[in-house]
Amino acid sequence: MTELHKGDSFTLPPKHVTQDMINRYADAAEDHNPLHIDPDFARTTRFGGTIAHGMLSAAFLQELLMQVFGEAWVANGEISINFMAPVHTGDFVTAEATVFAIKEDRVTLRLTCTNQEGKKVISGKASAIPLAD
Amino acid sequence: MTELHKGDSFTLPPKHVTQDMINRYADAAEDHNPLHIDPDFARTTRFGGTIAHGMLSAAFLQELLMQVFGEAWVANGEISINFMAPVHTGDFVTAEATVFAIKEDRVTLRLTCTNQEGKKVISGKASAIPLAD
Repeated sequence: MTELHKGDSFTLPPKHVTQDMINRYADAAEDHNPLHIDPDFARTTRFGGTIAHGMLSAAFLQELLMQVFGEAWVANGEISINFMAPVHTGDFVTAEATVFAIKEDRVTLRLTCTNQEGKKVISGKASAIPLAD
Repeated sequence: MTELHKGDSFTLPPKHVTQDMINRYADAAEDHNPLHIDPDFARTTRFGGTIAHGMLSAAFLQELLMQVFGEAWVANGEISINFMAPVHTGDFVTAEATVFAIKEDRVTLRLTCTNQEGKKVISGKASAIPLAD
């Protein structure tokens, strides 16, 4: 693994959250809440249409953290996230992580997911202790 | 939504984490790290075989929290989780949430995911402010 330094920043290309992606996620995670997969129902809610499972955006962060930390992420990772705003079907979500602290061996990153309007949909932080190669 | 009280506990039936479920999750979340989907590669790692994406177990918690909080979970939910141990392909994962604090309007639950041996694979907490009906 590359050594990490304060200020290092990592990002994924924007993910297009289509209804198809949400439906596949619902099947994979076995979570078929109609708010996510039933447009007619979802239109009647405060969200005005289907929205992604929050953990779908968190999954983008996880993908990024696996790139940053490798196996250490699975072995000793910690993550804390707040859902700031819903991700609507059709949105583009960009996951970003920036190293802001390295204390003893643990590396901590600030996390954000933003939509195509630059609105934060998730904020959080994650840390892990990199493994020796 | 039903009113929540300290000590209320919620659980999902155990989820069987098959390679097929992991593959579908990898497609849905667009995260094809070989540690999750390539048994030959995964055997060479410290995990000895494929493991689930950590966020797949987190997705089980999310499903449970949607049952507990409904739309409030999406509107104002917060979650913090630690990955305690990997979920190996074939494991059964049980998600559980117990109310341990209600402060002003915010309800906080302790979260665990355990495997079929009772080993904790995720611990954490989550909170949300229930919405008026």
